Amino acid sequence: VSGAPLGVFDSGLGGLTVVRALRSRLPHESIVYLGDTARVPYGTRSEDTILRYARSCASVLTKRGVKALVIACNTASAVALDMLRAELDLPVVGVIDPGASAAVEIAASGPKPVHKIGVLATARTVATGAYTRAVGRLSTRLEVIGQAAPLLVPLVEEGWIEGDVPRLAAERYLEPLIHADAGVIVLGCTHYPVLRSIIEDAAARLSGRHIPVVDSAEATAAAVGALLESRGLGAPASERGSLELLVTDLPASFSQMAERCLGTGAPAATQIDL
Amino acid sequence: VSGAPLGVFDSGLGGLTVVRALRSRLPHESIVYLGDTARVPYGTRSEDTILRYARSCASVLTKRGVKALVIACNTASAVALDMLRAELDLPVVGVIDPGASAAVEIAASGPKPVHKIGVLATARTVATGAYTRAVGRLSTRLEVIGQAAPLLVPLVEEGWIEGDVPRLAAERYLEPLIHADAGVIVLGCTHYPVLRSIIEDAAARLSGRHIPVVDSAEATAAAVGALLESRGLGAPASERGSLELLVTDLPASFSQMAERCLGTGAPAATQIDL
Repeated sequence: VSGAPLGVFDSGLGGLTVVRALRSRLPHESIVYLGDTARVPYGTRSEDTILRYARSCASVLTKRGVKALVIACNTASAVALDMLRAELDLPVVGVIDPGASAAVEIAASGPKPVHKIGVLATARTVATGAYTRAVGRLSTRLEVIGQAAPLLVPLVEEGWIEGDVPRLAAERYLEPLIHADAGVIVLGCTHYPVLRSIIEDAAARLSGRHIPVVDSAEATAAAVGALLESRGLGAPASERGSLELLVTDLPASFSQMAERCLGTGAPAATQIDL
Repeated sequence: VSGAPLGVFDSGLGGLTVVRALRSRLPHESIVYLGDTARVPYGTRSEDTILRYARSCASVLTKRGVKALVIACNTASAVALDMLRAELDLPVVGVIDPGASAAVEIAASGPKPVHKIGVLATARTVATGAYTRAVGRLSTRLEVIGQAAPLLVPLVEEGWIEGDVPRLAAERYLEPLIHADAGVIVLGCTHYPVLRSIIEDAAARLSGRHIPVVDSAEATAAAVGALLESRGLGAPASERGSLELLVTDLPASFSQMAERCLGTGAPAATQIDL
């Protein structure tokens, strides 16, 4: 089993930020990634629809014999993590608990006391209250303020990642969080790290000070590493991990984005039907 | 057959602008509308995926015994009209030919000679060249310039329909069309009429003059009326047309938007599985 690949899925290309972090931290692990580009975005859909889509993605990956499943999509993690853990006979890791832990650590370690964590996420992730529960399990002294930022996914998918439009969109979404005095901002969607510097600059401009921004990709890769180690599932150190990219639509444009995110070693994506 | 309803489908809520025009022009006709909200948007997907999605939408409507099919989505019209006409045993109307005709008429009738028609549309609609072909069948003297405007659909779906962000997005998309001296602008996506005044204002600001904007909903309703009359398929004048709204996800938020678009007489939407 330890030689089997990790299965990673997302609604589209956002989960590549998690793949990048996994490959950097766990270079011996092989990865099969599935981006559900025929049905992206998930964050504006109902829970029932997201559950159905997540189940079909997981099924593709379990049929390929993955040893663990990483839900590299905040919306699917918020909605479908418990269901997939109950239904599947293998470890399942989401991106919300790792991101929440990282935010709580930063809140506890900074020079100024932080009472509130702001979360930018999709409408669906905010509606589930998943970050509120995840932070609540770690600290009873921190309040979570969720802000739906639905336009950031299409901005990233279209490559509008600099200039006035993403800046104004980031300011509009951050304003309520800064106004409520959030001391840490969590990027609660795996697409948002692409806009990280725009979001950091906007938060600094609105608040007049530096506000730390948490991207859950790194924290998730660390959680996957700890899980593999605790279960004795880590790949042998002699291995060099491979990467396979599967998508449900538009493999050519996905391959381009994968190369931009992962570097020139990225393989071409293969299209599959769900 | 003349008592059967019209079937209308779109990727989401944009096609409601066509429903509004149909109900105003053809008040005796009953309509069954299907919005594929579980898979919206279509305009960023591949042709094969759009063909598959359009075929499954058409199948739902033909099973309900509709007498004619209206593809109230420019992307699906551009990609799937010929296929559906070949496969189905009933009249199929798209939104592109009616919109192109209206633009050609305006170009011919204005005080100033117009040589170029600008089309704002999804990436997929522009890539198909459907407007270029449709205008070319009507006039050999008019050039069509297509401009992909993919962010306008999520802006409308999110309700960001006023203020700086839609204004800047409209200016950015219109700039190449105005620079190329387009004398008419076609809204080549059924979502865009919601942003019509923003687009008109941006075109006037960039060009320093009034530029007519064509919305294909009215022209499509006129084409459907002419088709029904020519085939003797019109509903009896004694009838009062009914309306049924079907969606593949999120019926509650769709019903709200339908009421905003169609007025308080709009029925609640029902969710179906495809």
